[in-house]
Amino acid sequence: MNDYSVFCVSDHTGVTVESVAKSVLAQFPHLEFSLITLPFVDNAEKAQATVTRIAAVPRALTFSTLTDPALRVPFRQAGLGLFDVFELIAPAVESALGQIATPSGGHTHGMAPDYEARMDAVNFALNLDDGLNPDRLGQADLILVGVSRVGKTPTALYLALQYGLRAANYPLTPDDLERDDLPACLQSHLPRLRGLTLTAERLAALRQARYPDSRYASLEQCRMELGAAETFFKRHALPVVDTTRMSVEEIAAHLRQS
Amino acid sequence: MNDYSVFCVSDHTGVTVESVAKSVLAQFPHLEFSLITLPFVDNAEKAQATVTRIAAVPRALTFSTLTDPALRVPFRQAGLGLFDVFELIAPAVESALGQIATPSGGHTHGMAPDYEARMDAVNFALNLDDGLNPDRLGQADLILVGVSRVGKTPTALYLALQYGLRAANYPLTPDDLERDDLPACLQSHLPRLRGLTLTAERLAALRQARYPDSRYASLEQCRMELGAAETFFKRHALPVVDTTRMSVEEIAAHLRQS
Repeated sequence: MNDYSVFCVSDHTGVTVESVAKSVLAQFPHLEFSLITLPFVDNAEKAQATVTRIAAVPRALTFSTLTDPALRVPFRQAGLGLFDVFELIAPAVESALGQIATPSGGHTHGMAPDYEARMDAVNFALNLDDGLNPDRLGQADLILVGVSRVGKTPTALYLALQYGLRAANYPLTPDDLERDDLPACLQSHLPRLRGLTLTAERLAALRQARYPDSRYASLEQCRMELGAAETFFKRHALPVVDTTRMSVEEIAAHLRQS
Repeated sequence: MNDYSVFCVSDHTGVTVESVAKSVLAQFPHLEFSLITLPFVDNAEKAQATVTRIAAVPRALTFSTLTDPALRVPFRQAGLGLFDVFELIAPAVESALGQIATPSGGHTHGMAPDYEARMDAVNFALNLDDGLNPDRLGQADLILVGVSRVGKTPTALYLALQYGLRAANYPLTPDDLERDDLPACLQSHLPRLRGLTLTAERLAALRQARYPDSRYASLEQCRMELGAAETFFKRHALPVVDTTRMSVEEIAAHLRQS
């Protein structure tokens, strides 16, 4: 049973306020809650309807990113607590900058300048997924290398969607791993190669879920492949990320730094 | 030339603090800045190194999500302003809840409960991209339908990565559009279909970038396809999102609501 209903109210997508609410509430480990996001609350009528909805819920908490202070008024009038990201943070920024915030300046709506680049990056990641089109590796910002099921594809897609990075990914197959060194098509791009690895136990579990009781999923096979891949990574001093206990956000943040 | 260097310092990935900094600074439309994210600042040594780095930069602004208050101390000691999301928001939440925040409770590190679901959703979106495996449409949370280049694939991947939704996408080809109605494989899943559309001008521009001066990219062809698709959408009263001026985040937020 959830103690609290946490509403994330935004005049835009709600991505920022959801992220803030989750981070802040993670500091209250005994709190049980369900999260409800209400995006595009961008006029007085929608704000009032939102207030009515939330007021009917016992034990509600409301986080918001409402750029226009006027939209926050009905929440206060109804006696609802509101943790508004702009209200709590903008004044400190105003005084540091000696400038007044312009509410209407709000979010970078719609097609932000980097938007096309991010969509191009997604297409790039799909076109260079799993070793496809190796002749285009020279166009990549990063090339993720590792054995099957190490997390290359979701990571490449996340790097593209979140950061606009053109991330290719190349699987090291058992055939590749029996050779002396990395495949030739990768050797000309060493500065942009990034190794992904994980523990053999975790890899075996991931493969087991896909192909139960196969040789592919055996601990022995996983150990052999990971060992051979790590030998290649070491020889070329590639930056390596161990994805065993990491989310795709964490892997991506490490890769951006490497 | 950028007036300010904006640092986003986090003890974790930096996703939240980057999102907050961008949203807040969008309210200062005349501010020119470059954004530098410094993730995984999670001990005293790294905090000190970060302070040293930022202190050397003139006109720096620092946003942070540093769960442990002790890590914020060296910033203050060095006279650096710090807009810490937790510091500015947590006290209000504490008093509303009547509970004290536990800094060590911090972020949902690593494999959050929904992590596997999100990775499964990414694989699902890839397996059911562009009409692949229509026999599995019954497993989808949402099925995005629309003509070529309307934005189905990036949207499906974003819904999977960000929200763990199993989003399939199905292209309406010119052949499909010449028929009387939606393809049979879609008709059994009407409640989960969502139409994507955009203006013919925008579609023509997107197609032009891919196949210049083709019939596929002609305004006439785009108008014809979009008109036929919209007729299908209307007949079945499908929720429709016009993606013309929207980012993938905005499209996804609208689809979650629909």
